[in-house]
Amino acid sequence: MLLYEGKAKQIYSTENENEYVVYYKDDATAFNGEKKAEISSKGILNNKISTIIFEMLKENGIESHFIKSLSDREMLVKKVEILPLEVIVRNITAGSFCKRVGIEEGLVLDEPIFEICYKNDEYGDPLLNDDHAVAMKLATREELKFLKEETLKINELMKEFFLKMNLKLVDFKIEFGKDTDGNIILADEISPDTCRLWDVNTNEKLDKDRFRRDLGDLVEGYTEVLARMNNK
Amino acid sequence: MLLYEGKAKQIYSTENENEYVVYYKDDATAFNGEKKAEISSKGILNNKISTIIFEMLKENGIESHFIKSLSDREMLVKKVEILPLEVIVRNITAGSFCKRVGIEEGLVLDEPIFEICYKNDEYGDPLLNDDHAVAMKLATREELKFLKEETLKINELMKEFFLKMNLKLVDFKIEFGKDTDGNIILADEISPDTCRLWDVNTNEKLDKDRFRRDLGDLVEGYTEVLARMNNK
Ligand SMILES: Nc1ncnc2c1ncn2[C@@H]1O[C@H](COP(=O)(O)OP(=O)(O)O)[C@@H](O)[C@H]1O
Ligand SMILES: Nc1ncnc2c1ncn2[C@@H]1O[C@H](COP(=O)(O)OP(=O)(O)O)[C@@H](O)[C@H]1O
Ligand SMILES: [Mg+2]
Ligand SMILES: [Mg+2]
Repeated sequence: MLLYEGKAKQIYSTENENEYVVYYKDDATAFNGEKKAEISSKGILNNKISTIIFEMLKENGIESHFIKSLSDREMLVKKVEILPLEVIVRNITAGSFCKRVGIEEGLVLDEPIFEICYKNDEYGDPLLNDDHAVAMKLATREELKFLKEETLKINELMKEFFLKMNLKLVDFKIEFGKDTDGNIILADEISPDTCRLWDVNTNEKLDKDRFRRDLGDLVEGYTEVLARMNNK
Repeated sequence: MLLYEGKAKQIYSTENENEYVVYYKDDATAFNGEKKAEISSKGILNNKISTIIFEMLKENGIESHFIKSLSDREMLVKKVEILPLEVIVRNITAGSFCKRVGIEEGLVLDEPIFEICYKNDEYGDPLLNDDHAVAMKLATREELKFLKEETLKINELMKEFFLKMNLKLVDFKIEFGKDTDGNIILADEISPDTCRLWDVNTNEKLDKDRFRRDLGDLVEGYTEVLARMNNK
């Protein structure tokens, strides 16, 4: 049964009440839904890329909602209650950070920037600090500490992983959720829709900025990312 | 010599190279300068109110740039290099926080919210977290820790001080600067231009929101604040 339809995915219930199916759609949106398109086979690429990343993270001790791949567009996952936070790491300046504070894009940061935003489309996912998140009862201090530690570990693993295929991990957004045992685990997706990935040599953008900023064919970019993953 | 003219004050050099004169103007601005007015005697009220608050803080061990009052509109201060941060504390929800995240105004917070924003009119003083401030080299981690501790002390002292005169300290913005010895001290002003103050019984707003939101005569509000300070 379809439980939720988001901008990029659908969530279905299964016979097992602790498991969901995530179906990856071809819809692309940007600027909080203002720019929209259907891009044939994007869902397939993102499902495959997410699968490889969740598997890589699992091998390195990072728990996630991912159970197994079901089809080209579907993965079986643990049901979680998503924390309404967009958890972001930046290794190189880009995107909203540059726009908000007037900093140049492409500056390599001495240490990663960790950010949390309130996952709320109506308010444009506004930036929060820890005091805001606690006051809004979105997470406890202990949970925020865990999120930061876990996310920085994920960043190190992903940075190294992508570097092997000549890709710079510029930044990414992840989501966490509480599973039915009350543990907080990585959920949602990790794909070129949610990561900025630049070619090490040319700085060519192989991620959703191709769509946001009309920088080239999106499917070509995502296909290149998947191809490099499969060839590493 | 006039060194700097801001939205609310002028800064003059003196014969002593470590001291400045701050002159409080009658100009009122809101919404990043979009709304403007000259409000006769506002400068006098803010200079007097700031003076009383800096003196109260000093008695309670909080160092600031304030040296002494010179005239109705002028105070002598230590020259500092202002950190380009707007340091904010919230005890009750109001203002930009409510607007940014869609929260109701007037909610009493369990613990104060501490915030830092990038003091930059062009970008609308955007919110930062500690990682941003460090990456942008606006302050070190140690300086940010000191700012938070010092600001929360100032909040407790001011909350108690205003409560004695039946005023709720809803939130406030302060600035810090580095003095010529390299110490970080409280600077700028503390007045109804930079604090939200609500009457304990009626919730009447006695601060700059009168101007921002046309809630009544500004001078009447500030005069009431000063009168309560003098009668306590
Ligand atoms: N394991 C999970 N259990 C429950 N919800 C999930 C899980 N993984 C992801 N979700 C949620 O399902 C939705 C996925 O669809 P998406 O199209 O990305 O939505 P959105 O437009 O809200 O970003 C998101 O709201 C995401 O938080
Ligand atoms: N002791 C000080 N030494 C140097 N600069 C100061 C000191 N106290 C305040 N300032 C700065 O002087 C200016 C005061 O004028 P104001 O009208 O408030 O300016 P703004 O429009 O920038 O807020 C501010 O930029 C403030 O940071
Ligand atoms: Mg999503
Ligand atoms: Mg000012």
